[in-house]
Amino acid sequence: MARTQVGIIGAGPAGLLLSYLLHAEGIDAVVLEARSREYVEKRVRAGVCEHPTVELLREIGVGTRMDAEGLPHHGFSLRFDREDHRIALSELTGKTITVYGQQEIVKDLIAAHEAKGYPVEFEVSDVELHELSGDQPFVTYRDADGVSRRLDCDVIAGCDGFHGVSRPAIPADRVRFFNREYPFAWLGVLAQTPPSHEELIYTHHERGFALHSMRSPEITRLYLQVPFDEKIAEWSDDRIWSELSLRLEVDGEFSLREGPILDKGITPMRSFVTEPMQYGRLFLAGDAAHIVPPTGAKGMNLAIADVRVLSRALVELLQHKRSELAESYSDTCLRRVWRAEHFSWYMTSMLHVDPSSDDFQRRLQLSQLRYTASSTAAATSLAENYVGLPFE
Amino acid sequence: MARTQVGIIGAGPAGLLLSYLLHAEGIDAVVLEARSREYVEKRVRAGVCEHPTVELLREIGVGTRMDAEGLPHHGFSLRFDREDHRIALSELTGKTITVYGQQEIVKDLIAAHEAKGYPVEFEVSDVELHELSGDQPFVTYRDADGVSRRLDCDVIAGCDGFHGVSRPAIPADRVRFFNREYPFAWLGVLAQTPPSHEELIYTHHERGFALHSMRSPEITRLYLQVPFDEKIAEWSDDRIWSELSLRLEVDGEFSLREGPILDKGITPMRSFVTEPMQYGRLFLAGDAAHIVPPTGAKGMNLAIADVRVLSRALVELLQHKRSELAESYSDTCLRRVWRAEHFSWYMTSMLHVDPSSDDFQRRLQLSQLRYTASSTAAATSLAENYVGLPFE
Repeated sequence: MARTQVGIIGAGPAGLLLSYLLHAEGIDAVVLEARSREYVEKRVRAGVCEHPTVELLREIGVGTRMDAEGLPHHGFSLRFDREDHRIALSELTGKTITVYGQQEIVKDLIAAHEAKGYPVEFEVSDVELHELSGDQPFVTYRDADGVSRRLDCDVIAGCDGFHGVSRPAIPADRVRFFNREYPFAWLGVLAQTPPSHEELIYTHHERGFALHSMRSPEITRLYLQVPFDEKIAEWSDDRIWSELSLRLEVDGEFSLREGPILDKGITPMRSFVTEPMQYGRLFLAGDAAHIVPPTGAKGMNLAIADVRVLSRALVELLQHKRSELAESYSDTCLRRVWRAEHFSWYMTSMLHVDPSSDDFQRRLQLSQLRYTASSTAAATSLAENYVGLPFE
Repeated sequence: MARTQVGIIGAGPAGLLLSYLLHAEGIDAVVLEARSREYVEKRVRAGVCEHPTVELLREIGVGTRMDAEGLPHHGFSLRFDREDHRIALSELTGKTITVYGQQEIVKDLIAAHEAKGYPVEFEVSDVELHELSGDQPFVTYRDADGVSRRLDCDVIAGCDGFHGVSRPAIPADRVRFFNREYPFAWLGVLAQTPPSHEELIYTHHERGFALHSMRSPEITRLYLQVPFDEKIAEWSDDRIWSELSLRLEVDGEFSLREGPILDKGITPMRSFVTEPMQYGRLFLAGDAAHIVPPTGAKGMNLAIADVRVLSRALVELLQHKRSELAESYSDTCLRRVWRAEHFSWYMTSMLHVDPSSDDFQRRLQLSQLRYTASSTAAATSLAENYVGLPFE
């Protein structure tokens, strides 16, 4: 039977960063992860770090490789009606975003844990949370060797994603869920070809949304809006490239660089929020508490914002026996969560073709796109959300 | 059988302003109006003039009384969660709006017609438009004395509102309508009491939208969101005042001034657009072509923007035999029309309680309100639309 101050479920960006922030303040924490280290270090997810995320990682000393290998972006394209309109992020807000894969941040955080000797246990199974409403909660699980373990904690942090065990551990009558499923999904491909454009291109086309993005100077990431129940088998590589070409076409110079498709998959789109994000001694952070559709690139950034608030609250609670920040944790996070939910919904509805929308709505959508591309105020509003509103 | 260059159907702000602008350029026009002069001069409709409207009326010399009696506003309140947030229009945009009733503009324009001897025929009936697809269209009608008349024209301008005869004169296969009805209406009251606050108050309350506005320093105009099929008989004066008080309540100093209710009525809310706004020699302007929900105060202002474009196009067409502006009339107007439709939809959906919306949407709505009240960019975007984007 082991003991720690904070038991952290999940070694994604949220769990690892929380662990790192707590250790830096002298608080003991253990991270438990169901997957292997190799798996989490290769899991391709989010790729856009907003400005406050980049600042935070830098500030705590885990930003060295991000600064060397990440791609700072000063703007992106909003493409519609076969025309490009640049949203000049840094001119409008003084800030940039950095294209740097979530799995790279995970790698950097695991390496930092390793260097400092902070514990992360991979390949654990049968994780269960106990006695959450008391002040002596504990976690039971099997370790990588199949041995049953018990970890006693002061606090448990549920950072184990949407499908994790943490959120379902909250009694149904103590929590409320807000859910919205969208009538479309994203078909994402990873292609071995240099990006066709130096910046991201968010495209609204009558055939559906398309996004040109990148992972590195050699790897392009591309997305297509498809029906929510689409089967990946319907999409040959040829069909993917020809659909991308159609949607990304523009009057003027642009040609889509094709290359071998390394990976393809379909991601459903949903919005989901848990209120509150806390129950007794269990605190939820990141995807365990909320999901945003990927259009605004806010998922990982929200997770990082959550654990920044949580680490401060836990330092107060565990080192200074002051519970105010822990009690306000959920309210504090939810303000940013709902802002991101609204922004992600706004980006999604402005850029996608909703099969249930009528011609009136489509005309409004086009007017909104034209206005956003032509008004400094509207573009600034989009840009300040995209680069990330300041932490509270 | 009479002849004029431009036959104008309707003596609202659109028809009268068009007539005035055309005469000023030496083009002959006749305005035909179904109602009496007294009726149109007392018809209470819109009350907020955006900046470009005020500038235009001033520029052509019919703004004297507006400048003396209109109330310039430098901002308005956005009220929700029992808190006031000021949208500082003039700080954000350098521009103001002017509270001056539509019927006052109509009075000023009729007086200006009278002074210059420009013809306006009231109380005409049985108006019919003929030969619109040829180059010799004409109007038949009965004059105030019941005598049948024919007015031959080069061009006919349909400025006779949503229920007028002009739009239905376009063959069904040459026109397309976009329509949206909202699941709520506005109960409007005119009260004989000084305004309770020097500026407009747009309020989102869980019981529904409310608006505090004014017509003059002595007359308050107030609105309540009610169900779309509400009966005015359900609303006694007492019930109106108590509901207004509930919705407008705020933490801090505010008390609603009550007074005798001079008038009350329920207005349904819809969005409606006709494409194109032209057929042959018939040009539609204002409510004859489009309707916006009243939340953004854009209806009359759009009508004025239309006739500004139309007057220029007709000067080109009739005096210089150049048809480019006439041919692009509809496209030019529709850009501003769809911008206003989007803005009005945005204001409406941000401020009203949609009975069909779920809790997820309500949370987004609150986040949007909080963001709009706290971000300079978002407030500027709202403000620049509210004071009126510049004419093209």
